[in-house]
Amino acid sequence: MKLDLLFLPSEVREAQLEKQLVIVTDVLRASSTIVTALHHGAKEIIPVESLEDATRLMQDIGRKYVILCGEREGKKIDQFDLGNSPFEYTNGGIKDKTLIYCSTNGSRAIVRAASAGKLVMAGFLNLSYALDYAIKSDFDQITILCSGKEDRFCLEDVVCAGMMVSRLLEEFGDDLEASDAATAGLQIYNQHQKNIPKMIKTSDHGKYLAALGFGEDLIYCSQIDALPVVPVLENGRIVKSEQNS
Amino acid sequence: MKLDLLFLPSEVREAQLEKQLVIVTDVLRASSTIVTALHHGAKEIIPVESLEDATRLMQDIGRKYVILCGEREGKKIDQFDLGNSPFEYTNGGIKDKTLIYCSTNGSRAIVRAASAGKLVMAGFLNLSYALDYAIKSDFDQITILCSGKEDRFCLEDVVCAGMMVSRLLEEFGDDLEASDAATAGLQIYNQHQKNIPKMIKTSDHGKYLAALGFGEDLIYCSQIDALPVVPVLENGRIVKSEQNS
Repeated sequence: MKLDLLFLPSEVREAQLEKQLVIVTDVLRASSTIVTALHHGAKEIIPVESLEDATRLMQDIGRKYVILCGEREGKKIDQFDLGNSPFEYTNGGIKDKTLIYCSTNGSRAIVRAASAGKLVMAGFLNLSYALDYAIKSDFDQITILCSGKEDRFCLEDVVCAGMMVSRLLEEFGDDLEASDAATAGLQIYNQHQKNIPKMIKTSDHGKYLAALGFGEDLIYCSQIDALPVVPVLENGRIVKSEQNS
Repeated sequence: MKLDLLFLPSEVREAQLEKQLVIVTDVLRASSTIVTALHHGAKEIIPVESLEDATRLMQDIGRKYVILCGEREGKKIDQFDLGNSPFEYTNGGIKDKTLIYCSTNGSRAIVRAASAGKLVMAGFLNLSYALDYAIKSDFDQITILCSGKEDRFCLEDVVCAGMMVSRLLEEFGDDLEASDAATAGLQIYNQHQKNIPKMIKTSDHGKYLAALGFGEDLIYCSQIDALPVVPVLENGRIVKSEQNS
């Protein structure tokens, strides 16, 4: 099994992904929010890159049939229904609904990697479930794609990716051919593995979100394997994988 | 002192660099080759992003006044005078000459960061000299820019950057405000600090160059502080800083 890690969406080469399983991670907060929304019954989530794409898609489908979700600079977008805090996705309002989802980093990463043979999303919240799915799938290469923060390095994504590398090494041992980047991710994870909540709280991104009033989100997103959900991309829509539905 | 580390040139925000000192690193091989060329008497090196830019500039200046240097996929470019091995820059042929330099990663990184308040180049070969220069300069922020490999993570650049972070921490102590990325670079460096030559030799990029026949380059580029040269960018041309001329 080959394993690569992309620190940023700008590293994606679309043609290379076609025969790979790609795991997109955006701990704060797209992965965590999408996992939460599917766990609480959302029918599907359509990731889009821009506000313009979100608005156009909403008009195509019809305003009353969709929920508009997303953030810019961490805050809910004007005239959208929901922002990007996972706590906004835990009540009945999203059950069986189609969500159009536009976040700064996570939804862009998904769109950029949409050519993948298979694309799943993972954060700490569903890490083992997503890895079990990936391991059972019949791909020769797994690529973990960190969403970054505004096209810059993002610590919590790399640590989460490094934790995945660690688990995959346990699974495959010497049969795992890890790239330099995957090994570097593992090394960064090793520095933080004993205290993931602290790493998130003291990260540049975590401090930014806490200052906006989202301190509870940080604690929520640092839980490991709390939700048995594997979001997979099917024809441009993220749905809960049947394997664990 | 603020310290940031960019893993890839795609992370550059030009406007942000104007008040910063930027250290560009491309261990294999632009930093090492440029340091070597200046040490052996090259007058100046003009970095360009593309072959077209190199050819146009050569025509503007005049073919007989310049030496055309660079590589694609590690190999010398057809009709160019020199490739990208530092050993091609150690004889008298380049003395007092203007070099037009076009490499896949390093020269692009320099061009992208050319808006920096001050731009210097460093590899292992001149690490302490470049850092002394940076420390003596009067900037409140230093950003280390890794050149990457074809817009992807490149281990040897990150390890070299992490070594710089380590040295700057020794210098500034608690007065150094390191970003998450800078701290991550330090952690990766710590894993390799005991054997830099081995890290380079076993890196993805090192193995690629060795397969092309450049094994000696790897050993050469892993020497620490072998050359007392600080390349600085002045009006689009890289020259030896006067501080150590």
